[in-house]
Amino acid sequence: MKAAALTLGAIVESLGGRLHGDATISIHGLAPLATAAQGEIAFLSNPRYGSELAASRASCVIVSPAMESAARNRANGNLACIIATDPYHYYAQLTQLWKRSAGRASTPGVHATAVVDASARIDPSATVGPLCVVEAGATVGAQTVLAPRVTIGRGCVVGARCIIHSGAVIGADGFGFAPHDGRWEKIEQLGAVRIGDDCEIGANTCIDRGALSDTVLEEGVKLDNLVQIGHNVHVGAHTAMAGCAGVAGSAHIGRHCTVGGGAVILGHLHIADHVNISASSTVMRSISEPGHYSGVFPIDDNAAWEKNAATLRQLHRLRERVRGLEKQLDRLTGLPSPNETTL
Amino acid sequence: MKAAALTLGAIVESLGGRLHGDATISIHGLAPLATAAQGEIAFLSNPRYGSELAASRASCVIVSPAMESAARNRANGNLACIIATDPYHYYAQLTQLWKRSAGRASTPGVHATAVVDASARIDPSATVGPLCVVEAGATVGAQTVLAPRVTIGRGCVVGARCIIHSGAVIGADGFGFAPHDGRWEKIEQLGAVRIGDDCEIGANTCIDRGALSDTVLEEGVKLDNLVQIGHNVHVGAHTAMAGCAGVAGSAHIGRHCTVGGGAVILGHLHIADHVNISASSTVMRSISEPGHYSGVFPIDDNAAWEKNAATLRQLHRLRERVRGLEKQLDRLTGLPSPNETTL
Amino acid sequence: MKAAALTLGAIVESLGGRLHGDATISIHGLAPLATAAQGEIAFLSNPRYGSELAASRASCVIVSPAMESAARNRANGNLACIIATDPYHYYAQLTQLWKRSAGRASTPGVHATAVVDASARIDPSATVGPLCVVEAGATVGAQTVLAPRVTIGRGCVVGARCIIHSGAVIGADGFGFAPHDGRWEKIEQLGAVRIGDDCEIGANTCIDRGALSDTVLEEGVKLDNLVQIGHNVHVGAHTAMAGCAGVAGSAHIGRHCTVGGGAVILGHLHIADHVNISASSTVMRSISEPGHYSGVFPIDDNAAWEKNAATLRQLHRLRERVRGLEKQLDRLTGLPSPNETTL
Repeated sequence: MKAAALTLGAIVESLGGRLHGDATISIHGLAPLATAAQGEIAFLSNPRYGSELAASRASCVIVSPAMESAARNRANGNLACIIATDPYHYYAQLTQLWKRSAGRASTPGVHATAVVDASARIDPSATVGPLCVVEAGATVGAQTVLAPRVTIGRGCVVGARCIIHSGAVIGADGFGFAPHDGRWEKIEQLGAVRIGDDCEIGANTCIDRGALSDTVLEEGVKLDNLVQIGHNVHVGAHTAMAGCAGVAGSAHIGRHCTVGGGAVILGHLHIADHVNISASSTVMRSISEPGHYSGVFPIDDNAAWEKNAATLRQLHRLRERVRGLEKQLDRLTGLPSPNETTL
Repeated sequence: MKAAALTLGAIVESLGGRLHGDATISIHGLAPLATAAQGEIAFLSNPRYGSELAASRASCVIVSPAMESAARNRANGNLACIIATDPYHYYAQLTQLWKRSAGRASTPGVHATAVVDASARIDPSATVGPLCVVEAGATVGAQTVLAPRVTIGRGCVVGARCIIHSGAVIGADGFGFAPHDGRWEKIEQLGAVRIGDDCEIGANTCIDRGALSDTVLEEGVKLDNLVQIGHNVHVGAHTAMAGCAGVAGSAHIGRHCTVGGGAVILGHLHIADHVNISASSTVMRSISEPGHYSGVFPIDDNAAWEKNAATLRQLHRLRERVRGLEKQLDRLTGLPSPNETTL
Repeated sequence: MKAAALTLGAIVESLGGRLHGDATISIHGLAPLATAAQGEIAFLSNPRYGSELAASRASCVIVSPAMESAARNRANGNLACIIATDPYHYYAQLTQLWKRSAGRASTPGVHATAVVDASARIDPSATVGPLCVVEAGATVGAQTVLAPRVTIGRGCVVGARCIIHSGAVIGADGFGFAPHDGRWEKIEQLGAVRIGDDCEIGANTCIDRGALSDTVLEEGVKLDNLVQIGHNVHVGAHTAMAGCAGVAGSAHIGRHCTVGGGAVILGHLHIADHVNISASSTVMRSISEPGHYSGVFPIDDNAAWEKNAATLRQLHRLRERVRGLEKQLDRLTGLPSPNETTL
């Protein structure tokens, strides 16, 4: 994205930080430290990559105070640096400034092709993109952006400053049926979905409405694409889930958790705050302690996997065999010594 | 959902069951037994939760005949109970009655923003929601509801009384290619999709058209959100699949099966009737016997998982080592006794 | 699909191959060898199914030169065969001919209900289906088809002869946040998506835009439905991924790879050319050698699985126990023989 250009002076004026170098240098792009060219700005957050600093051709590098002298060493008439307490956070803010400067902020208002029920409440500062559907009684909060082709179901509430990406479906029916005579009798889903402020919901992600009470996402929750949130799930504030994760009905997930891509959390479980679930892991029991949890079959070349997988199906028997060996050996070594027995 | 209100008398008149208590009590909501307040109705299906019965503040509780005396014990002027053979089924029917009473039933007809080909056949009692696409030659049966933003592809058939949730895509091309000179030559998908009566298809779920013949869902099949059904799959009647499940091409799945969330069924397999697949499990072989099948790596704290996963990659060798130990020990204990050898 | 009819002569004229039999025979459908009826054409690619050849009622069978005599043996006035070097490839081409003959090719042009930004470049030979959204600065190449309800985000590029199926979202924001004071600060995604020529993207599949540089699919990539491609992923030419696969950010996947359904590839990994990943497998490390890789927990009846899974959580300890046994046995058998010790 090279449409915009900002001087280093303008950047520091907006975002703070201490600038070493020429404030009139014009920046026309953001780039990774290793590949940044002249006219681009990069950041260094991890000291491990300090060696890239001297070699970088970036016109400006954002660094932490600890890297200040190293960064200043490279400075000359064309090379500058900005000292910021948290360079990664500074960089995040810079991407936001960049987007605004490039005129890419969403324009508030409801697109002419969106289908919005007369009883829905859309904040005047919200954006409802093309071909969205907002059903009866739904609410969309201030500065929230619905990308094109989003569905907000009847009575669902989306807070302020949220972003809902294209194809997301908020408030489809939860998956509820009562078995009866070999058929499934539908349990109408009478609850809704409530999404707090500052949430982001990925493309084609689905959040089902509750059966009786509501499905809830507290503030600051970030869901990636193709995530499934079942009915009556509760997701605590500032929890993030990567793509293709799935959470079954009535699970209660704490605050500040992370759920890796493709992970599955079964229904009715309780996950504590500050729990990190690895990608592709399946949570089958509640987790009461913060920490990092994993459960993934390690990948291997197919032939080796086949052997190990076949053995795995007999693992319990293998343990029995080891137990048997231990007993046998105990008996053997527990025998009186040969001297004693022979004499 | 508190818009509606129904008297207990009206409920019993519609759904049957024996009422103990004042038929004029007005119910303004459904709620779980544990949290139901005055004016709400709850149900007790599992005797395990019998202790919640006495404590519940619900104005009415639906119970089985076995719980009748316990339920009547709590009855007084304001507390009632309904005796029903299958309280969970009764409750499901009550949610349906509730939705109808609240005036939330779908209005038949094709929304003005839907794009329906002139050659498509839409039953006059069906509902086609906003921004749906129904392509040439497709059929939508009586009382079927297409939620907003659903695609029904060319020539596909949806039966009667189905619900297709927002974003679902019925009849995209199956994934078929012939490898040729290092490239993939497209195999045009000439079949369609046929969905029986009383099916429900979740939000953003995809059912691909067949390559030559059709992909088929028999009646009463229930698919949750984000489910993938490959080309030429056959799903037997009254089978249900939870969110993010995936079925590869030409798999044949029996009747009355359940497939857990995130489970994967490989292509060309045959699954018998009454098979239950646990969430996150991968079916790699046909299953000919009814039963409950699982295959999930158990989750653990990350450090423990890492150790076990690393060892797992050597499991086959571990079995060889156990076999070696067994042989060694056999030789050892198979030796003549010390007495015999020393004398 | 029986709308079309083609004579064998017309087929051979279009696609080549040697015809044995009556060129005027009219074919009204394609079918599998085992179920093909009179008037239908089938193919035999795998000699394993040679026995089906004699029994087939297909009016024409496409076979390889090796099967020529067997195929001619069945020929008579009504039964014909076509000899082709690669029958499966011939069949693929025949499906394409069939679709064209049936008049099902897409009509170029932008559907009236599509929302296309004035700055987007749509090739005149491309098709933009109903209710698609093509944002500012996006490009859609020659003969490319966007099925109904596709989103192409701002500045994204789709090459020539691509097919993008219904519900796909190209160019939603990548999932990027900087943690800050317990909250997630959004990193605006300033890159785009570039899709090469001859790619096919499945229904409801998502390809995220890059953070700084672009997410790239080289030519001939085929993605099935509900696939997730994270920001800055690079997918090499002619790689194919089955349904529900997920690739996390900045992964670099080689050319001519296959990724099975539901497989997950973690972020920042490097996968060599000609790597095949089995369905449901999770790639946690880079793969530098071509080959077939797997990692799936084998399914079993639930009771057996529970035992084995429980044991698996103690696998590392089990190995320690085996090690202990080995040492014990070494000491035992390493001892002087009973004769020596007792005398």
